[in-house]
Formats: sequence, structure tokens, C-alpha cells
Amino acid sequence: MTALEKATLESRNKDASARFERYRGRNLSLDMTRGKPSPEQLDLADDLLTLVQGGDTKGEDGTDLRNYGGLAGIPEARRLFAEYLDTTPDRVIVAGNASLAVMWDTLANAMMYGMPDGDGPWKDQSPKIICPVPGYDRHFAICERLGIDMINVPMTEDGPDLEAVKALVADDASVKAIWCVPKYSNPSGEVYSDATVDALASIPTAAKDFRLLWDNAYSVHHLGEGPAPLKDIITACEKAGNPNRPLVFGSTSKITHAGAGVALIAASPVNVEDHLKKISFATIGPDKINQLRHVRFFKNMDGILAHMQKHADIVAPKFKAVDDALEARLGGTGLATWTKPKGGYFVSVDVVDGCAKEVIKRCGDAGVKITPAGATYPYGKDPHDRNIRIAPTLPSVDEIQTAMEVLTAAIEAVCTEKLLKG
Amino acid sequence: MTALEKATLESRNKDASARFERYRGRNLSLDMTRGKPSPEQLDLADDLLTLVQGGDTKGEDGTDLRNYGGLAGIPEARRLFAEYLDTTPDRVIVAGNASLAVMWDTLANAMMYGMPDGDGPWKDQSPKIICPVPGYDRHFAICERLGIDMINVPMTEDGPDLEAVKALVADDASVKAIWCVPKYSNPSGEVYSDATVDALASIPTAAKDFRLLWDNAYSVHHLGEGPAPLKDIITACEKAGNPNRPLVFGSTSKITHAGAGVALIAASPVNVEDHLKKISFATIGPDKINQLRHVRFFKNMDGILAHMQKHADIVAPKFKAVDDALEARLGGTGLATWTKPKGGYFVSVDVVDGCAKEVIKRCGDAGVKITPAGATYPYGKDPHDRNIRIAPTLPSVDEIQTAMEVLTAAIEAVCTEKLLKG
Repeated sequence: MTALEKATLESRNKDASARFERYRGRNLSLDMTRGKPSPEQLDLADDLLTLVQGGDTKGEDGTDLRNYGGLAGIPEARRLFAEYLDTTPDRVIVAGNASLAVMWDTLANAMMYGMPDGDGPWKDQSPKIICPVPGYDRHFAICERLGIDMINVPMTEDGPDLEAVKALVADDASVKAIWCVPKYSNPSGEVYSDATVDALASIPTAAKDFRLLWDNAYSVHHLGEGPAPLKDIITACEKAGNPNRPLVFGSTSKITHAGAGVALIAASPVNVEDHLKKISFATIGPDKINQLRHVRFFKNMDGILAHMQKHADIVAPKFKAVDDALEARLGGTGLATWTKPKGGYFVSVDVVDGCAKEVIKRCGDAGVKITPAGATYPYGKDPHDRNIRIAPTLPSVDEIQTAMEVLTAAIEAVCTEKLLKG
Repeated sequence: MTALEKATLESRNKDASARFERYRGRNLSLDMTRGKPSPEQLDLADDLLTLVQGGDTKGEDGTDLRNYGGLAGIPEARRLFAEYLDTTPDRVIVAGNASLAVMWDTLANAMMYGMPDGDGPWKDQSPKIICPVPGYDRHFAICERLGIDMINVPMTEDGPDLEAVKALVADDASVKAIWCVPKYSNPSGEVYSDATVDALASIPTAAKDFRLLWDNAYSVHHLGEGPAPLKDIITACEKAGNPNRPLVFGSTSKITHAGAGVALIAASPVNVEDHLKKISFATIGPDKINQLRHVRFFKNMDGILAHMQKHADIVAPKFKAVDDALEARLGGTGLATWTKPKGGYFVSVDVVDGCAKEVIKRCGDAGVKITPAGATYPYGKDPHDRNIRIAPTLPSVDEIQTAMEVLTAAIEAVCTEKLLKG
């Protein structure tokens, strides 16, 4: 380091620390940890609450939706969400209020009973799942809980590093699946390219029951430019001769009401039949009345798209506030790089190696909660201690601006300190 | 058999067979298989559908119930259903739309991770569960699916045969639980006596993590005399020094809407904490909006009781139609005995040994669907082939009268045939 570089770092550190201390004195209480919709976003769907009333509770086929039954979901919901997931109604199951539960059920049942095409319960096969990193903490928590080993592979701007994936799946039949958030990836925002989709559909795998855990959580969750195109994985896998490879997950949690939406799984008829058999021991059917509310509210895919444009109008300024603050405070400093997503729920910031934990700790001291360091990596271990996930949807623009002042000051202070220590 | 007895049987058989044939010619299509509420019962709760509207979605503590969170259920629902289950709110979790799912989660997680006080995952301990018979087919299906062995014990009018239970649990630590439907038992209608409750709470068990799977599905589901008293199992177990023994399940499936209600689990604080940890991997929270609908609809326990009186008014005549038909056609014949429940969803009929399967087959031939023989026993095997479960709630009184004519004719024809063959 030259004397000039050192002096610059020292000056930046002093400035940033002073800024940070001023905010620390303000007893802030801001939360940027979770990808929750804001009240204004939730308001957009309030009309659905009263769309099913007494005397009007029958489905299109005459079924009384208040009673038991309907394990796969109501036909009109399967049709609507088939359009949403780019597939056919017979390939869609509409479930309860959380796609996380569907993913848990899928993997817990795979551990206990295996998957079609496979050699029995995964628990007897030392199963491993590939995890593009950074990724979604709740995916990782399911694997860790179930005793499924996780193997990190890096993300590229087109999706997971395909050479790394190919090498892992080629010879090892215990590598059973890969987690994918193919559009506006959590947390780094990438959209998988057509070439990535085709490769994942066709890569030869030693495991006969290899699965793409395709969590299309943000299919229509754009920031103003409309949903990014994403090649249909179900058709791609069929064409590649691997029809049972994809398990597509989705939900309306970030479309209607986060706690009172409907969840989805789409897959080949073989997988659908297998999933229905597995869940038939645990439930007689999902809340079909809530499915009817959703169908009546959206009517069709155009309804969903028009609705998501309203979300974009609310959310986009928040993402802009995050990016503006990062540019204004850290642009050109070399202390951080960050994503500029076109959709989804997160901005991912990489700071100087070895600094993320300390940055997040200091933010906490100043009353700004940031997702714990490491959360975006399997086992909570970011090998470089550099990734920070920002969730801008819940706070207001004002709150984001304040929180980002704290975060950027903390980043600048901690990273310059680190660089000065060498 | 005397000549007179033989002649009487032959005459009865001829009459019954002729009656049966007349009905068989009528192309009936009647379904007495499942304990589903009727449309009239479901109508009683229709007002709840519109009790939560836009602008009015906050809980009593100010939480926006449209958003994520609230793993244990909303406080006001925990309070209401604590009253319903005769316990305290901290001992209650209010879940999604099906108690079956809660029971599945409980046992699947016990298999994978064990239970408080125990020695680890049940799957490593050759677990066995005691099943009072006849009982509920879906309980048995969960056990069979999870690989938990089932051991039959007979029911008495006060509950399970306690001497049989005591002998099974005394020395064998692999006997992990007993299924109980303590009020208006499914299908035979018994209400557990106080002495049975106290005994189950206090019996010494070799398994340190022995559990009472207390499916109080019909807590308030009486037929006109008000809910039968049932001693509180949670307090009884606490007093007996076994606070973690009971796991109480319940739901509003047969109170509000069968497919869109809320499910409940009540247990000791240790069990509640354990259950919440287990489900935290699978869900961020239940549908809290639907919980709010339920709280607003009932307001308090008096609201639930008043509501269930309306159910009784609808359901009681249907049970009477079943009993009237059985008395009229089979009373004093010695061909069948049956229950006269004060609540619940079923009438249980025992016919001459070795006849149930054939009776149900013949009813099917005549267009009257009856729950398959053996369904009320573990592994679908009724050792005496004599139990028939009748579910009178869904059909109309007219339909029940017709179905019962077919069923009683089939019983009389098949049983007299059997007795004549000797």
C-alpha cells in the first residue's frame, strides 16, 4: 500500500466511523432482514377476502368447496396456475398456504420413501444436494435438518456454474438434486439463461432419480420491465428425455397475502401421482375456499400480470433507494460490489473478504437488523465472510434511506479498517 | 339348531333377500362411507367467510395478519381454542386446515427426531402404537405408512381395556403411544370415563417418551344433550407426574367448514416448544387470516356451544333414522348389535362373525356405498369380520332411510345364510 493509499483509507475510515456514530446515537429500530411484502403490497389483494361468500361456495364442476376432499386442488386453480407456471393443469397441484411446506414434504418424503425412478429411500443413500451460492437460507435449513449433505457451487450471471454441476453429478449417484431459484435468484437476482435451463435438463446424472428443485418463487415479481423470460424447465426436461427431473415450486405468498396464499407444485404426471400418494396420508385436502378466492380475484394470467405491475410500482422505488445509497457511498471505492436485480426480493452485496460479520454486527448495534452473515450459505458458513443480503420490500423508502446510511457507513468503516490492517 | 329355529331363519332369509332384490333393481347411488358434514351443517358457518375484510386485517396485538409469521397461531385464536380444549393458551398451537396433517407431522417427526424425554428417533426403536379397536382408519394409515407397528386392544364402554394397555406398556419401551378418540369415539361412540382418563395419565410405562395421541375430534359434537363431560387429560397427566404424556389434537373441520377450518394441538410447554421447533423447518406460519375469521365468528366458547346446538338439530334426526331402521329390522333378531352414540359422526354395527365383508359387498352391488369392511381395524383386518361403520351425517334422512333398508336387508340375508350353513 502506498502512503497515499493509506492516507485515503484512513480518511475514509474516519469519515465513515463518524457518520456511523451519529446514526448509532439515534436509537434506530429498522429491520432489513426478511423478504416480506409491505402493507401497501398486501393491500393490493384485499378484495379477494370477500370474493367467496355464503351461497356461492361451489366450484365450476359443482363441488361444494367447503367440504373435505380435492387433494390436488380445485380444477379452476390448477388451470390458472398451470398458465402461471407455463405447463398443463394435470401437471399442477395447488396446495395450502406455503411453498416451503411443499418443499419440506417433498424432501422429507424423498428421504423416507424415495422418488420415482430411484432406488428407494434417500436416507439409505447418503444423499447430497447441490447448492448454488449464495442462496436461500430456508432451502439450506431443510437439507441440514433432514441430514442431506450440501455441496456449494458458484453462481454465474447465467445460473449455477455448469461445469461444476456436471462434475458433481456425473459419477456420484448419491448427488440427488440441485436447488434452483431460476428467476431473480435469491439473493443475487440472476435469471437462468436458456442454455443453463437446457443444460440442467440434459446433463447426464449418475442418480436415476436426480431432481431439479426448481423454486420459481419470483416468476412474475419484476421491478417494472415485466417478467424476465425463463425457458420452461418441464418441457426442456421432457425433450431431453428426463421428464421426471424437474419439481417446480411456487406460491402466491408474494402476490396476494404472504400468510394466506396458495402454494404450487408442478411436475411430470409420474411425479404428480407420487406426490399425491405421499401427501394422502397427511391430508384430506387443502383449503379449497381460499383457492376459489384466488381464482375469482385473478380470473386469468392477465389478471396476475396486471396485479404484479402494481407491486412493481410500489417496490421499484425501494430497490432504487438501495442502489442509490450504495452508488453514492460506495461507488468506485472498491470496498463492495452489489447486484442490480430486475426482480425478486433482494439485493446482494459482497464486501471485502472477512468483513460481512463485523458489518452486520455493527449495524445491529446501531438498531439496523440485517440478515445474519452466512445465512445465504449452507450451514450458515460464508467461506469468504463477504456476502450481505438486503431485503428492501418491507420498510418505507425513508426507512431504507436511513438504514442504508448506517449500512454503507458500517461497510466503509469495517472494510477500510480491514484493508489498513492488511 | 332346532327345526323351528331353522324354519325361522329360512323364512327371515327369504323375506330379507326379496326385500334386498327389490332395492337392487332401483339403481340407487347412496354414499354412507365418510364422516362428512352435510351442506346444511356447512351453511351454519357461512357468515365467517366475510368477517375479515380489507382494512380490517390486524390482530388484537396490532400484527398485520396478512403477512408472514405467527408459527404458533394468533393469540386470540390460541385463547379461544384453549377454552375449547380446556387448557391454557400457552399450551395450544393453532395450525392450518387439518388436524390429520398435525398428527402426521407429529408422528413423522417423532420417527425422524424423537420426542422430549425419549432416547432419540423412534425409527431406531422398533416403535409400536396401541390401537383401541374398532378405531379410525386414517390413524392406522399413518402408522402403517411410517412403519410403526400397531397392537389392537379392545374397547370397553369406558374406553380402552386398561388391563390390556397396562400389560403392553409396562415392560416394553418400544410401545411408544396409544391412539385415543376420547369423546364419542370413532366409530363406536364411547366417552372415556374419569377413571380411564386418570389411569391413562398415570399408568407406568417403560417408554420414557410414551404419548397419548388424544384426538379429541368430537369435543362438542353432541346429538342434543350437550357435550358429554370428559376429564381434562392435560391436568390429569400433570397431576400424575407425566406432564409431557398427552398430545391433544382437534379441529374445526366439523364445526365450521370441513375443508377450510383450523386445526389444533395442545400439550405441555415442553411439547409445544418441541413441536414448534420441528415445524419451523416446514412453514413460516399458518393461514392467520382464517384464524381471525374463526375468532370473530365464535367470539368465545359460548359461541361455539350455541353453534354446535344448531349442528345437533340437523344431525340428530339422521342418527335417529339409522337407529330406527336397525331396531325395526334387526331388533331382537340376534343378528346384529349396534351403538347408540350421544355424539360424534358414526354408528358402529357388529353383525354375525364372518359376515361384514359380504354385507358391504352386497350393499355396493345395490348402489349403497358403505365404508369397506376392516377399515376400522389396523392393516384393514377385522379379525372377526363383523364391524360395519355407518356415517349418517352427509345424506338426507330420506336417503338414510333408503340406504338403511338396503343395509338391514343385506345384514339379515347374509347373517341368516351364515347361520344356516352353521
